Amino acid sequence: MKSMTKPILQALAGEVPSRTPIWLMRQAGRYLPEYRELRTKARDFLNFCYTPEMATEATLQPIRRFGFDAAIIFSDILVIPDALGQPVRFEPGIGPKLEALTGRAGIDALTPGRAAEFLAPVYEALRQTRAALPDETALIGFAGAPWTLAAYMIEGSGSRDYQTARKFALMQPEAFETLIGILEDAIAAHLIRQIDAGAEVVQLFDSWAGALPAYGVSRWSLGPIGRIADAVKAAHPQARVIAFPRGADSFLTQFAAHPSIDAVSLGQAIPPSRLAEVRQAGATPQGNLDPVALIAGGAILDAEIDGILAAGAGGAHVFNLGHGITPETPIAHVEQLVARVRGAR
Amino acid sequence: MKSMTKPILQALAGEVPSRTPIWLMRQAGRYLPEYRELRTKARDFLNFCYTPEMATEATLQPIRRFGFDAAIIFSDILVIPDALGQPVRFEPGIGPKLEALTGRAGIDALTPGRAAEFLAPVYEALRQTRAALPDETALIGFAGAPWTLAAYMIEGSGSRDYQTARKFALMQPEAFETLIGILEDAIAAHLIRQIDAGAEVVQLFDSWAGALPAYGVSRWSLGPIGRIADAVKAAHPQARVIAFPRGADSFLTQFAAHPSIDAVSLGQAIPPSRLAEVRQAGATPQGNLDPVALIAGGAILDAEIDGILAAGAGGAHVFNLGHGITPETPIAHVEQLVARVRGAR
Repeated sequence: MKSMTKPILQALAGEVPSRTPIWLMRQAGRYLPEYRELRTKARDFLNFCYTPEMATEATLQPIRRFGFDAAIIFSDILVIPDALGQPVRFEPGIGPKLEALTGRAGIDALTPGRAAEFLAPVYEALRQTRAALPDETALIGFAGAPWTLAAYMIEGSGSRDYQTARKFALMQPEAFETLIGILEDAIAAHLIRQIDAGAEVVQLFDSWAGALPAYGVSRWSLGPIGRIADAVKAAHPQARVIAFPRGADSFLTQFAAHPSIDAVSLGQAIPPSRLAEVRQAGATPQGNLDPVALIAGGAILDAEIDGILAAGAGGAHVFNLGHGITPETPIAHVEQLVARVRGAR
Repeated sequence: MKSMTKPILQALAGEVPSRTPIWLMRQAGRYLPEYRELRTKARDFLNFCYTPEMATEATLQPIRRFGFDAAIIFSDILVIPDALGQPVRFEPGIGPKLEALTGRAGIDALTPGRAAEFLAPVYEALRQTRAALPDETALIGFAGAPWTLAAYMIEGSGSRDYQTARKFALMQPEAFETLIGILEDAIAAHLIRQIDAGAEVVQLFDSWAGALPAYGVSRWSLGPIGRIADAVKAAHPQARVIAFPRGADSFLTQFAAHPSIDAVSLGQAIPPSRLAEVRQAGATPQGNLDPVALIAGGAILDAEIDGILAAGAGGAHVFNLGHGITPETPIAHVEQLVARVRGAR
């Protein structure tokens, strides 16, 4: 199969790839002048995400510039609550704002039935991107994981410790489980439709998994993510699933051991020595360069890249950051990174 | 030695204590009506901390009510920057604010020489508390760890990811190391003076260790904490040192293995199964009940307490929360907790 020659698909299949594949979380974004220029043409951020031509162009920009091994569709994890009838707006300099869910009534008012139609522009962007991508570049779809989306939906915004959402989970358990269930179904369907539209890989971002107490990780992070991965695999056995349970550092091997999770993305707090642990538990490690080292550049950046490459050598590994690239990252440092990873063998 | 019969000192010496000792982070605080009443009498939060009679009374309040095995002196981690000449103010509902350090000049202007005199009211509060405490109650002093204090000093406030401080560390490495060194010395001296004044145990809070990339943990968290613990032990060999590297979940056993660190405090994201791992690495585990389970109460709380007690059974263990108690915690739930831990054997 031709697509299996793509290095990232080799690595996600657990094979030693022909070269270490690299892509970067938020690789399409504000650190690129061509992105900032494009962004001025949209009314607001979600309008940008929902305009297939713009989302496609943003997705392609970093591929043209850096030749990454994968393109990740330009979108946002909060399109799911937006599609479920809990409108999201992005306040410049502040972040996402939603009308917070406070109980059962708000959950019962969600509209899962309209999500497919609402999100049609995302799938159209995937089709357009797929058609425009070089043959050797993989296409990645993504979604937020249920806990992270529930946390935004209950808090109404980002938060330092997501305590309102954590209280909701414990004190309104039936309503919370209902919400997690609705999100599981909506996310699985969204990922399956992204694969229908051309994605070969999907990534689940559980950005706030680290805010969960230990007893909540299996119930609200690993459990739902595993079931979503199972549903994706049932519909598309050849698709690859990456889980990013950010901050759930005591549970990496449990995520890695799940049969439907092909890769686990690691934050920069994970020592490179743990890449082998993830691999041994049954998944490909992805990561995990510190985005701040990428801002710093120079010898510091080289040393960090080399340490991660050494830890990943000899087995399946997808090079990435431990978190999204920041807007202030110099483009020359991204060039330095790609050259060093490509030159490594 | 009489003091060695205190259960918490037995546990911190690595022995199986006569009963599981319990205290709670932020046990003196806003969830207590008598604290809220007392607090109205002080001009501002730091004025409260620096008035020995008030700090002593706040420290004693939860001991009278719940009979915890240890009192922790009422103070704040930010008294160190305040004492070093970087004034701190607490804005109600927002948190601490400092004039941010931006480079070498601000660091050179710090005044470590005046810290001992500036912090004299803290030591006086310890002496008054020691005199008033029941014989069976241990007294704990504390300080913020260098990285966490440096992060506040560079950011000028709390932050979600401490990226400004992380950039400073990489991009102004000489200035940053100087700052860490100044803090190490000031913190070690502060802890030693707290022990001089009657503390038997000291805890180092590295509240933002989880924001560090892996390569930064040994350099800026474990390294400085280990050297401070060594200095404390050199001055007071019988004193016990607890480290709380919050969020540095891949490094717990490295903290536990340090010869001068007697106990490692665990956040609620650590599964209870890891208590044994800490013990095996050479330290007493402390923790790690989810503060949100303490808000919830009832059967949920009982189940979480029992799980932690079971994990800690048969060896040294100090029961505590995984993070500070929250202001909305019902007092009845704290009573439920203490009764259940005390009834466990």
